[in-house]
Amino acid sequence: MSRLLLNCDIGESFGSWTMGLDAEVMPFIDCANIACGFHAGDPGIMRKTVSLALANNVKIGAHPAYQDLAGFGRRSMAYSAQELQDLLHYQIGALDGICRAQGTQVSYVKPHGAMYNDMMANPAQLRAVIQGVAAYDSSLPLMLMATRDNSAAQAMGDEFGVTLWFEAFADRAYDSAGRLVARQLPGAVHHDADVIVQQALTIAAGKALVASDGSALHLHANTLCVHGDNASSVAAVQRIREALNQQVQA
Amino acid sequence: MSRLLLNCDIGESFGSWTMGLDAEVMPFIDCANIACGFHAGDPGIMRKTVSLALANNVKIGAHPAYQDLAGFGRRSMAYSAQELQDLLHYQIGALDGICRAQGTQVSYVKPHGAMYNDMMANPAQLRAVIQGVAAYDSSLPLMLMATRDNSAAQAMGDEFGVTLWFEAFADRAYDSAGRLVARQLPGAVHHDADVIVQQALTIAAGKALVASDGSALHLHANTLCVHGDNASSVAAVQRIREALNQQVQA
Amino acid sequence: MSRLLLNCDIGESFGSWTMGLDAEVMPFIDCANIACGFHAGDPGIMRKTVSLALANNVKIGAHPAYQDLAGFGRRSMAYSAQELQDLLHYQIGALDGICRAQGTQVSYVKPHGAMYNDMMANPAQLRAVIQGVAAYDSSLPLMLMATRDNSAAQAMGDEFGVTLWFEAFADRAYDSAGRLVARQLPGAVHHDADVIVQQALTIAAGKALVASDGSALHLHANTLCVHGDNASSVAAVQRIREALNQQVQA
Amino acid sequence: MSRLLLNCDIGESFGSWTMGLDAEVMPFIDCANIACGFHAGDPGIMRKTVSLALANNVKIGAHPAYQDLAGFGRRSMAYSAQELQDLLHYQIGALDGICRAQGTQVSYVKPHGAMYNDMMANPAQLRAVIQGVAAYDSSLPLMLMATRDNSAAQAMGDEFGVTLWFEAFADRAYDSAGRLVARQLPGAVHHDADVIVQQALTIAAGKALVASDGSALHLHANTLCVHGDNASSVAAVQRIREALNQQVQA
Repeated sequence: MSRLLLNCDIGESFGSWTMGLDAEVMPFIDCANIACGFHAGDPGIMRKTVSLALANNVKIGAHPAYQDLAGFGRRSMAYSAQELQDLLHYQIGALDGICRAQGTQVSYVKPHGAMYNDMMANPAQLRAVIQGVAAYDSSLPLMLMATRDNSAAQAMGDEFGVTLWFEAFADRAYDSAGRLVARQLPGAVHHDADVIVQQALTIAAGKALVASDGSALHLHANTLCVHGDNASSVAAVQRIREALNQQVQA
Repeated sequence: MSRLLLNCDIGESFGSWTMGLDAEVMPFIDCANIACGFHAGDPGIMRKTVSLALANNVKIGAHPAYQDLAGFGRRSMAYSAQELQDLLHYQIGALDGICRAQGTQVSYVKPHGAMYNDMMANPAQLRAVIQGVAAYDSSLPLMLMATRDNSAAQAMGDEFGVTLWFEAFADRAYDSAGRLVARQLPGAVHHDADVIVQQALTIAAGKALVASDGSALHLHANTLCVHGDNASSVAAVQRIREALNQQVQA
Repeated sequence: MSRLLLNCDIGESFGSWTMGLDAEVMPFIDCANIACGFHAGDPGIMRKTVSLALANNVKIGAHPAYQDLAGFGRRSMAYSAQELQDLLHYQIGALDGICRAQGTQVSYVKPHGAMYNDMMANPAQLRAVIQGVAAYDSSLPLMLMATRDNSAAQAMGDEFGVTLWFEAFADRAYDSAGRLVARQLPGAVHHDADVIVQQALTIAAGKALVASDGSALHLHANTLCVHGDNASSVAAVQRIREALNQQVQA
Repeated sequence: MSRLLLNCDIGESFGSWTMGLDAEVMPFIDCANIACGFHAGDPGIMRKTVSLALANNVKIGAHPAYQDLAGFGRRSMAYSAQELQDLLHYQIGALDGICRAQGTQVSYVKPHGAMYNDMMANPAQLRAVIQGVAAYDSSLPLMLMATRDNSAAQAMGDEFGVTLWFEAFADRAYDSAGRLVARQLPGAVHHDADVIVQQALTIAAGKALVASDGSALHLHANTLCVHGDNASSVAAVQRIREALNQQVQA
C-alpha cells in the first residue's frame, strides 16, 4: 500500500446528540472509523453513517471502545485480555450487521480512545487486540500508532497474520521517541493549516519530520489521522486531501 | 422440516448475575435462542453460551430485544419500524461477531419478550421484523408464534423470502383462537409433566389440541418452546426430548 | 402565584455531547427543568447545571424520564405505577444529592418527554406521578400541562396535597379542546417572534387565546414552557422575558 | 462507638436477576450497604431493600460504585477526583430519594468494589471520597478498611469533619502490614466457621490477631464486613451475631 490513506473518527453522535461534521468531512477521507455503540453511535446512527460512507466510497472501519458512554470511552478501564476480545467481537460484529443490511462490510479495525492508548502503552493488551482481530477475521487490517520503531508491533501482527496499518498525525508535534508531545505542552498541537499540510506531505513522502528536540524522526505510516470535529478541521482535511492528490500526480 | 425442534431461551445471564440452567438444558434442545446484550447477555456471556451450543451441536439463534436491561426487554416500547430493524441488525450482527470468532454463525432469529409480543399483536411490526431479517440475510428463518391460522404471517414471510418457523408451547393452555390462555387464568399453565409431554407429542404428531372451550385446535408448528429456568423445567425438557425421540422411531 | 413563571428544559447534554444553550437562556428564565440522568444529564453535567442555576437565581426542578438514553426519553414505555414512582424517587433524589453538595435543593418536578405525555393521556399514570411526588415531598409542586379544564388534575393534586403548576406554550397553536395542535399540521408551531410574544402576554394576562377553529380558549396557566435549543429560541425567550416584565410594571 | 457493627453488601440484585440472600441475612446485621444502581440495584430493587432494612431496624448505607454494570463495579476506571465526587453525590442522593419516600434516610457511606480498592490504594482518591461525603453531609460516617495504622486516613477524616468507620474481616487472613492476604494464596480465606467466629470475637475484644507471618496484628475496627451470598455465609453471620451478643453480655 503506497498511498497515504486519510482516516477519521466518524459516527460519534448518539441518540439525539450530534457530534462532528460527518457529511462534510466524508468526501475527503479514505477510511471512516465508525463508532460501534459503546462510546458513541447507536444502531440508527450507525446505519446512517454506513450509508454515508457507502455514498462517498469510503472504507468502513470498526471503531470499538470500552463500555463507557458517559466517559466517551476515554477512561482507562481494567479489562482482561479475554474481556477485551469479547468487546472487539461484539462491536465489530454489530457494525458488520449494520453493514450487511446495506450490502457492505467492515474493512478494518481501529480501537478508540482509552482502548487505543492502553494498547499502545501495554504490549499484552496490543497482543490481545491483534489476537482478537485475527479470531474475527485475519484479513481485517488493524490501525495503530506509528512510532519510531514499529518492529515489535509488526512482529505481533505477523505472528497472528494480521496486517497493521500504522497511523501518523499531521497536526501534532512528535518527540524524538516518536510519541506525540503531550497536549498541555507548548507547541504540541499545530494550528496553522500550512504547517499541518506540510507535515502531511512530509509523512506521505516518507521523509523525516523534525522532532521536538530538533532531531530527525522517520515515521513509517500507512495512514494519517484527520478530524471532522468542526469547520476548521474539515477545511484542513480538504487541504490535506488536495495536497496529497497533487503530490501523487507530481 | 418434519421434526419438531425444541427451542429454548439461553444465555440470559448478565455480568455477575446468573439466570437459567444453560448447561443442564443444552443437551436436550435443538435451538438455543441466545440473548444479544440488550435485555440480557454481555459479550462474555455470549461467548460462553455460543461455545456451549457448539459443544452440544445446537443451532444458534439470535434473540434480539428492546434496549431495556432493567426491564429484561419485557416492557413494550414505542419503536418505529426503522428503529426496530436497526435493533435487529445490530444485535444479530453482534452475536454473529461472537460466533465468527468461534468459527460458527447465527442460524435463525427469534425476537424476545415485548418485541415478540408486539410483533404478534401488530402486523406492521411483524412486517418490519420480517423485512429486517430479510435485509440481514433472507436465508435466516424467523421464529414466531403458531396461531390457529398462520396464513397472514406466512404471506409476509413469502413476500420477503423469509422462512418462518412457527412455535407452540407444551406447557400452556390455548384458547379456541389459538392464543395462549392468560397466565392469571386457572389452568393456563400446565404443571403436570405427563400433561406437558402429552401436549408435546400431540403437537409433534400434527394432531388437534383441546382448546380451553373444549373445541379442537390444530396448530401447525415447526418448533416447541421449552424452558431451562430451573431443575423442574429442565426435567420436563428431558422427558419431552425422550418422548419425541421415541415417537420418531415408532 | 400571580406571576407567569418561565420554565425551560436544561442540562440535556450528556458526557461529551452538548445540547442546548444553557448558559445563554438561564438569565431569562425562572425555573430550570434539569435532566436527571435517564434521558440526558450525567452526574457531572448535573453539577454544572445546578451551579449555573444557582448563579442565576433560578429555581431547580427535577426533570425525570423513562430510562431510555438512546431515545432521549421520548419513546413510550410500559411502566407500572410502582415502577414509575421508583423512577421518580431515584431521579429526584439523585438531583437532590447533586444539589445538596452545593447547598441547595430541588424545588419542583416536571416529568420529561414520554413520561409527561403518557401522564397527560392517562389519568392512572397522572395519579401515580402525583402520588409519587407526594411520597417524596408533598411540598414540591408538579408541573403539568394546562388544558381547557384543569379540574380533574386539580382534584388529584388536592387529594395528595400536591401543588400543581399548569404550563402553557407561547409558540404552539391550540385546538378548541385546549390541546396542542399536532406538529405535522400547518400552523402548529409559531415561528414569528411577535406572535410568540403576543401569545405569552395573552396567557400571562389571563385572557383568551384563539384556538385553531377560531373559538376562544381560556388557559389557566402558572408557567410558560420556553426553549433554549438555539440562538433564535433564546432570543424569543429574552423577548418574552422583557415583555412580561413590562406587563407586570404596567 | 464501642460495639462492633456487622455490615453486609445488600440489594445487589438487578432487574430480573437475583443475587444474595438479603432477607435471610438482614436479621443478623447492623448495617446494610445498599447498591445504588451503578454496579447493581435498580430503583425497584432499592425500594424493596430499603423496606427490608426498615423492617429489620438495620442502618441504611449507600454503596456507590463506578458506572460499570457489566463489570459489577469491580474494574478499576480512571475517574478524576471531581468525577468521583459527582458519582458519590448522584448515587447517595438517589438512595436517599428512595429512602425519603419511605420516611427514612441514608446513615453512612461505603464505596463498592474497585472504588473501594482504589480509595484504599491511592490517598488522593481517598481524599476525594472523604471530601465528597463531607460536601453531601459531613454527619455521614464513611466506611473504609482498617489497616495496621489508620492514622493517615483518620487525619483526612478529621480535616473534613467526617467520621470514619474502619472495617475488618473475620473470614480473611491478614499479613503483618494489616492487609488482606491475596485470595489466591493458601490460607487466605477462612472456611471453618469456628475460626471465623473466633476471629470476629478477637477483633471485637480489641485483641491482636495473628498475621500470616506469625506476628501480632492489632486492628482497630468499628465494624466487621460479613456476607450474605449463600446459605453457608448467612449461617456464619448468624453465629458471629450470637457470639458477639454473648461477648457483650459477658
